Amino acid sequence: MNNKEISLKNLTSPHELSRLDMRQCEKLCGEIRENIIRTVMKNGGHLSSNLGTVELAVAIHRVFRSPADKIIWDVGHQAYAHKLLTGRYDDFGTLRKKGGISGFCRPEESEHDAFISGHSSTSISAALGMAEAMRLDGDKHHAVAVIGDGAFTGGLAYEGLNNAGKSNNNLIVILNHNDMSISKNVGAFAKYLTSIRGNTAYINAKNKVEYILGNTPIVGEPIKKVIQTSKSALKSVLYHSTMFEDMGFVYLGPIDGHNISELEDALRAAKKLRRPVFVHVNTIKGKGFRPAEINPGAFHAIPSCGYRKNNPNNDIKDSFSEAAGKALCRLAAKDSKICAVTAAMKYATGLQYFASEYPERFFDVGIAEQHAVTFAAGLAKGGRLPFFAVYSSFLQRSYDQIIHDASIDRAHIVIGIDRAGFSGEDGETHQGIFDVPMLLTVPGITVFSPSTYKELELCMETAFYRTDGVAAVRYPKGGETLTFGAEDTVSYAYTLTKNGNRRLAVGYGRIIHNLYAAAENCDVLKLVKLYPVEEEILRICKNYDEIFFFEEGSRRGGIGEYLLTELYGKGYRGKYFITAPDGFIGQASMEECLDEYGLSAEKMKAIFNNCSEDSIET
Amino acid sequence: MNNKEISLKNLTSPHELSRLDMRQCEKLCGEIRENIIRTVMKNGGHLSSNLGTVELAVAIHRVFRSPADKIIWDVGHQAYAHKLLTGRYDDFGTLRKKGGISGFCRPEESEHDAFISGHSSTSISAALGMAEAMRLDGDKHHAVAVIGDGAFTGGLAYEGLNNAGKSNNNLIVILNHNDMSISKNVGAFAKYLTSIRGNTAYINAKNKVEYILGNTPIVGEPIKKVIQTSKSALKSVLYHSTMFEDMGFVYLGPIDGHNISELEDALRAAKKLRRPVFVHVNTIKGKGFRPAEINPGAFHAIPSCGYRKNNPNNDIKDSFSEAAGKALCRLAAKDSKICAVTAAMKYATGLQYFASEYPERFFDVGIAEQHAVTFAAGLAKGGRLPFFAVYSSFLQRSYDQIIHDASIDRAHIVIGIDRAGFSGEDGETHQGIFDVPMLLTVPGITVFSPSTYKELELCMETAFYRTDGVAAVRYPKGGETLTFGAEDTVSYAYTLTKNGNRRLAVGYGRIIHNLYAAAENCDVLKLVKLYPVEEEILRICKNYDEIFFFEEGSRRGGIGEYLLTELYGKGYRGKYFITAPDGFIGQASMEECLDEYGLSAEKMKAIFNNCSEDSIET
Repeated sequence: MNNKEISLKNLTSPHELSRLDMRQCEKLCGEIRENIIRTVMKNGGHLSSNLGTVELAVAIHRVFRSPADKIIWDVGHQAYAHKLLTGRYDDFGTLRKKGGISGFCRPEESEHDAFISGHSSTSISAALGMAEAMRLDGDKHHAVAVIGDGAFTGGLAYEGLNNAGKSNNNLIVILNHNDMSISKNVGAFAKYLTSIRGNTAYINAKNKVEYILGNTPIVGEPIKKVIQTSKSALKSVLYHSTMFEDMGFVYLGPIDGHNISELEDALRAAKKLRRPVFVHVNTIKGKGFRPAEINPGAFHAIPSCGYRKNNPNNDIKDSFSEAAGKALCRLAAKDSKICAVTAAMKYATGLQYFASEYPERFFDVGIAEQHAVTFAAGLAKGGRLPFFAVYSSFLQRSYDQIIHDASIDRAHIVIGIDRAGFSGEDGETHQGIFDVPMLLTVPGITVFSPSTYKELELCMETAFYRTDGVAAVRYPKGGETLTFGAEDTVSYAYTLTKNGNRRLAVGYGRIIHNLYAAAENCDVLKLVKLYPVEEEILRICKNYDEIFFFEEGSRRGGIGEYLLTELYGKGYRGKYFITAPDGFIGQASMEECLDEYGLSAEKMKAIFNNCSEDSIET
Repeated sequence: MNNKEISLKNLTSPHELSRLDMRQCEKLCGEIRENIIRTVMKNGGHLSSNLGTVELAVAIHRVFRSPADKIIWDVGHQAYAHKLLTGRYDDFGTLRKKGGISGFCRPEESEHDAFISGHSSTSISAALGMAEAMRLDGDKHHAVAVIGDGAFTGGLAYEGLNNAGKSNNNLIVILNHNDMSISKNVGAFAKYLTSIRGNTAYINAKNKVEYILGNTPIVGEPIKKVIQTSKSALKSVLYHSTMFEDMGFVYLGPIDGHNISELEDALRAAKKLRRPVFVHVNTIKGKGFRPAEINPGAFHAIPSCGYRKNNPNNDIKDSFSEAAGKALCRLAAKDSKICAVTAAMKYATGLQYFASEYPERFFDVGIAEQHAVTFAAGLAKGGRLPFFAVYSSFLQRSYDQIIHDASIDRAHIVIGIDRAGFSGEDGETHQGIFDVPMLLTVPGITVFSPSTYKELELCMETAFYRTDGVAAVRYPKGGETLTFGAEDTVSYAYTLTKNGNRRLAVGYGRIIHNLYAAAENCDVLKLVKLYPVEEEILRICKNYDEIFFFEEGSRRGGIGEYLLTELYGKGYRGKYFITAPDGFIGQASMEECLDEYGLSAEKMKAIFNNCSEDSIET
């Protein structure tokens, strides 16, 4: 490759980056930013975080040799530059499209994506595992975890850090410090990081580096020499007494995350230490795109319909999230016991209204879903009525806390499960298809799944005042779809639409509208209270010769299977057809997902027609 | 109460403790220790940890007024002294018996048990929730979390700490620092704590306290006065720059945890600060009982059969844990790729053999089940074959990591699920009844449930070499029970014992032996590979008119229900009876549990007889 014509287009391997001079690197960064902005504005995706890591991605690939060195991007929503640098430039236009480039890291997509990502705070644990595997193999390469300060509010990151600090391998943890998680970062640790970030007094820097290196056997001396002769490395010095040094890491930083040569010097120093190193990098979320720099929260995630106004509330306008948030405000106006809890998702779950009206009763606990549930159980035991709003797929983190801390002692908490069902373009890691199977194993739980905003509010009220123990109200990503006349009864239990048919179609949640549209020669049973199933539901179902169950969630362990086992106990022996996905679900638009898994009105119609010929069963 | 005749017997309320003088307190502590030792030697239970917290419990109840002040014991296995001081002296002989005093904290047992406990690292989150509830109510009482250094290796504790440090309420976190979790504590954080523990230089203590108090509005001055006039409070001073101060807490310590007056002074100072305070207390695990002081690990948990020799290996002699540990060694001898991971349960899960034979490949990650799975997935992605041995109920912490970090990208990890099924005397929080329902929701998983040691090894080998993605091998607490002749075929799939009957009894795991003993006029199908169910199993089952399914685990979402839904799809319409517990299961001996839930041979016989009259179905 001729260095003079370097561009993303003709970059065949990230290894070529090391041959570029600084001016070329900077030009490349500009090109990367252009590509990210253009693609995200078109396809949707994460913008601010990806603009913040452009120089970091370039520096990492200049210093380390992926895939021999393992680069692990926490969450993965800041890895677009990494993707553009590692052979995915040509396909980048398919970002978040069905069959296209993932918005997160996927090892099946590229050997340069060392570990799957999507959920927060996993990178240190994964990198440590890989670093230990390399140590055992005598492989001298590095495992590099890149993790934001937001992800550090998750306990898993701390578990990894705690385990890593005493280890003896080539692990490098890069803190991508932008002072944001998704909204403004919260918690004591964030405050602590910021206190370091702001510090410009590199006390006695040179001596300190030399001292530590002098005490590092074998490699110390050569590195000392490198550092002594490197001007900018002197800026990336060992800061005095940080929490990370207390945890057993060598601490380097803070580094200017938009200065490639400063980044490189620090990463090269880290690489040579051959022990766990913590590199603190300051970045600006949205860097290089003024609107995003000014309001990074608004540009955290851009929906696929393109560029929207500079308003963080826009994200959730006319959505179940917004409806839940506003309903909670109305309920809280009448009941001072109601509190709201979020795990760093104030805007995304519609809780900003509650937060501004009732700041005393609003708790953003950080990306800490385990803690959120146990904390909510504590609030409940203290006489409060907590509402924990959380994405379905992130609630998976709370399984033990739901059982152990809340359910056994019947702490009355209400979980608002947002993004329940398909989540569309985010793909496998974000699909809300496991909350039902997971929660159905929790003794004493009550689960509601409303189909409309009105029903959502009714279910929330019912969950607060007419259930005990753990209750969950689940609602989909996006807004209300079609609403119908007669069928659109508001209920917290069920609605049966009878037309004297011998076949019954059963469903719940968003897809019920498709079911109403598709049902021919079928009575329709809309479930709202999913669990536990009431005797009345069983009596209704038993009357039919054929039951068609539709579920926007994992078939295995879902309501469809559960209802069948209950019906069997009541002597039902009729036909029973379940339509629901099994296994993980890749990225695609919501409509594509629904259609692929038989949950569009059209596909439902086809199922009704085919099944009348008795070809498929359960 | 006459102070002169104070004893546990005539203590009617913990409030009376504040009237005792030091000599009386010490006498009481002796009495508490006697009671604990006597009862644990008889009933089994946790010994070392409870002997270490006697003075702490006395001091807490002298300074705080439970239940108005909320005392939350993390894990709860160190709360026996607290129990004896709060109205449970008379019943203490029923410790861990059916219907008796719990070995952990149970709010339903006493208003002084402010929050349920059993699993580690929950106390800060729960206490913070309660402290916030009190703040909102204008209630000036305190929430006090007592948490060991071992529990601090769990990310949940850190999530709580991170959220608490920036809060503004009456939360006090007491670190019970004994340098042990269950075995020797591990991790960087433990090392860090120990570095503080050893420090005796209380630099410029008095001034530092005064400075902080001078800067604490309103309450600062009066406390300053109290501290200035209190001699021993001067010892419990603010230590310079700890991680906890970085996190936003006031730090007091380290305090001698066996010196009541020093403890009291520190707790009183903490109480008066009215902001989050971290009190670092040094205790000796096993204090006051020489054998336990010398080897606290061996006396961590005493089995109910009474006092056993001073050997940590005794815990697991002739048990599935030991069998798993030794089988792993044999497999590892032939395959250097095999690694072992434990979450602070080296001895309890039988991994001590592996640890001593293959120290390089052994990883104790602390009480960090989330990290353990993601770390193992990292090892797997690095080409290793990790075996994570963990108690069934603790694996609940790893649900998201199993799905997100391991299963989606098909990282090949093998989970050894110990204590699968009833756990007996530990009660609700420790029952291994949810792992099957939980794991059955994980796409692509393979689950084995061997009945004998031989089968366990075969299943482990099969899991390593003949499955991909996540595989689990589950085995019960305790040892092999009865073994039979012909029926005792070793298989990793299933064993069918045919006698030409029209009814089939199906079961798996430990209870299969009871089933063999009970089955009359029944063919018996022993499942070993539980999931996914093979076509062959469905073909076999379809041949029978009646199926009796027995399951030592949650009925809801279990194999019994799953098999039924699969059979239904194949056209099965015969009788199907499930015998399995539903809901939480209280403490009792293993035999009592099995009998209560219809899983003893006798009860199984009764079920076979009753069901022939067609009275029960599913």
